[in-house]
Amino acid sequence: MARYGYFGSMKAKPGHRDQVVKILLRASDDVRTAGCHLYVVGVADDDDQTIWVNEVWDSKEDHDASLQLPETRAAIAEAMPMLTGEFTSREFTVLGGLGLPPE
Amino acid sequence: MARYGYFGSMKAKPGHRDQVVKILLRASDDVRTAGCHLYVVGVADDDDQTIWVNEVWDSKEDHDASLQLPETRAAIAEAMPMLTGEFTSREFTVLGGLGLPPE
Repeated sequence: MARYGYFGSMKAKPGHRDQVVKILLRASDDVRTAGCHLYVVGVADDDDQTIWVNEVWDSKEDHDASLQLPETRAAIAEAMPMLTGEFTSREFTVLGGLGLPPE
Repeated sequence: MARYGYFGSMKAKPGHRDQVVKILLRASDDVRTAGCHLYVVGVADDDDQTIWVNEVWDSKEDHDASLQLPETRAAIAEAMPMLTGEFTSREFTVLGGLGLPPE
């Protein structure tokens, strides 16, 4: 089955981006065993609020299930008050490329 | 130095997406030694023309230099006539996460 790709952004309230990034990096460690192959956290260079997250999962089902993990729910609850509420997201079907473990 | 992230899309002319994907997957193998850690190729689920590419490089300089490699130039020349000319791109600074080799 083709893998599930996700590329999304969130916006931190002014001064809170580093804290949110720290939460996301910690969360990336929690999803290692949940069918997640890639969870890259980055920040925009042209503003100091935008955070980018790029994920590759075995399936959309694995991704969606991860949102119900207690550690994920705790991370979301911790980060949410520091976010503006502006999100973007793109989903795509991963066909291959460099840097992913073999299927 | 922080790594360089890139997430972009291109649109293939109707009926040409598979061919362009094949060229991109071949190209992803050529950049392995050029400072590229991730080169994921995917397709949109909600249309049959959009292709997504997600890259992580040691630096923007490595990324830009790769565009001048003979094999990259050949791949671009081969793909270009099959594209509509509509592109999107996002650049970001990679701060870490799961699935990338250690810096």
